[in-house]
Amino acid sequence: MSTGDCSPKTRKVWIINIGTELLLGTTVNTNGSWLAERLSSIGYTVERIIIVPDRLEDVAEEVRRAVEKNAGVIITTGGLGPTYDDSTAKYVAIATERELELNREAYGMVEEKYRSLGEPMTPEREKMAYLPRGSFPLRNHLGTAPGFRLCYKNTLVFSLPGVPSEMKLMYEREVEPILKKHTQLTRVERKIQVVGWKESALAPIVNQLARTFPHLYIKSHPKGYEGGSPVIEVQITALSKNTEEGLREIERVRDKLWELMEKEKGNKKGS
Amino acid sequence: MSTGDCSPKTRKVWIINIGTELLLGTTVNTNGSWLAERLSSIGYTVERIIIVPDRLEDVAEEVRRAVEKNAGVIITTGGLGPTYDDSTAKYVAIATERELELNREAYGMVEEKYRSLGEPMTPEREKMAYLPRGSFPLRNHLGTAPGFRLCYKNTLVFSLPGVPSEMKLMYEREVEPILKKHTQLTRVERKIQVVGWKESALAPIVNQLARTFPHLYIKSHPKGYEGGSPVIEVQITALSKNTEEGLREIERVRDKLWELMEKEKGNKKGS
Repeated sequence: MSTGDCSPKTRKVWIINIGTELLLGTTVNTNGSWLAERLSSIGYTVERIIIVPDRLEDVAEEVRRAVEKNAGVIITTGGLGPTYDDSTAKYVAIATERELELNREAYGMVEEKYRSLGEPMTPEREKMAYLPRGSFPLRNHLGTAPGFRLCYKNTLVFSLPGVPSEMKLMYEREVEPILKKHTQLTRVERKIQVVGWKESALAPIVNQLARTFPHLYIKSHPKGYEGGSPVIEVQITALSKNTEEGLREIERVRDKLWELMEKEKGNKKGS
Repeated sequence: MSTGDCSPKTRKVWIINIGTELLLGTTVNTNGSWLAERLSSIGYTVERIIIVPDRLEDVAEEVRRAVEKNAGVIITTGGLGPTYDDSTAKYVAIATERELELNREAYGMVEEKYRSLGEPMTPEREKMAYLPRGSFPLRNHLGTAPGFRLCYKNTLVFSLPGVPSEMKLMYEREVEPILKKHTQLTRVERKIQVVGWKESALAPIVNQLARTFPHLYIKSHPKGYEGGSPVIEVQITALSKNTEEGLREIERVRDKLWELMEKEKGNKKGS
């Protein structure tokens, strides 16, 4: 049995958001995008954000697939609470081939919460302290259900609550410090506004930039009109050893962008 | 070669949102939840909402997996525009084993748009009219890139734009009317506020309701505190032949909920 700690085999991340309310569309998956932004900013690449129903076969399938597809990190959200369809710990245990067992440290966390509220333990509350064997509980600073982390085939698995405020604080205090230890990259991003060019007219230039700088992420987004002229935002994202290096790379792309646009305007005048 | 029309083999839907900006977390996937809510309301069950990178192997894998997992409907968003990483039509063509070809009807739609803007066709603009063979273009009432629909192994595949306003209008005018023909169910939902009960105390009651009414979706959501008392929202969702029948089912659950709560309060007093 491996412990909760290991060095993730890659910097690829799969985010698995568990919850039928997300599939009914009554709740927007802000957890997925919040986590994706934080993970990208410390040098991880999110390869999937998947919403699945609260069902063993679905959750287990996505966890196993992430491991097969070489994810170094899996983050699940949701399904840690006391109700019948909160079964993430069980599903992750099965997917990672281990038993579910009462975790003493997690039990202490849950009991302490309810004691401070003057409430007894019940089977539903005790359930929240059953975790996959070999996992470490993650403290829930706002709610009652602990999260947990474990390591399976050199993939770090973190299971966080679905309530956004609880999830965010747990990520910041219990997850990000561990992930930061394993990467030294910083993400730098700049957005450049181009006014007066249609996206389809700018497309050949963006294509050429992407071919010239294959290690950067370059993408145009149409942003409507300003005073009758179309506005395109060109997003440039670099992952670099430090912010200065990232900014230098982005500057080179920006210079090339202006150069290609000038050339194209010259061509039009000539033709 | 099957045509764009067929009867979907199930009412299960997979939504596949394509776009690196969604995986960087800079854009929240509101398209996924909007579509999920609309599809649920006409009797479809969304089984997955998956964000994938703009890459052949990822998009093709998810499309194939949806077909294998018995989805009757697949909806993709994003990747229909003129830039180098807008390749959804190509990826869907490969995943559904057909060629990409210039679609005359789609070409007409694109040309008409640019003509009305006084603009010529270019290779980047023409690219938007290349669709998988045997598919039908879907008119983009706001933007320039047409969507398309096709049928593969009795799964209906719809590819829609990523810009939310374009996606929504295309869904409403070109997709929902087709999907509605294949289902006659209506979704009815009610939310009941329970004040003064903690979620963990209400959990055994919600569990019992879910066991008693397995054909309904019943779920509790903690909603914070009101005047010092915890507030829980109990969500009850029914899919029925009509609204009246759905409301009757929900009423039965509500009556049972109050009955179980009264009983539990009596127990506490007695003990």
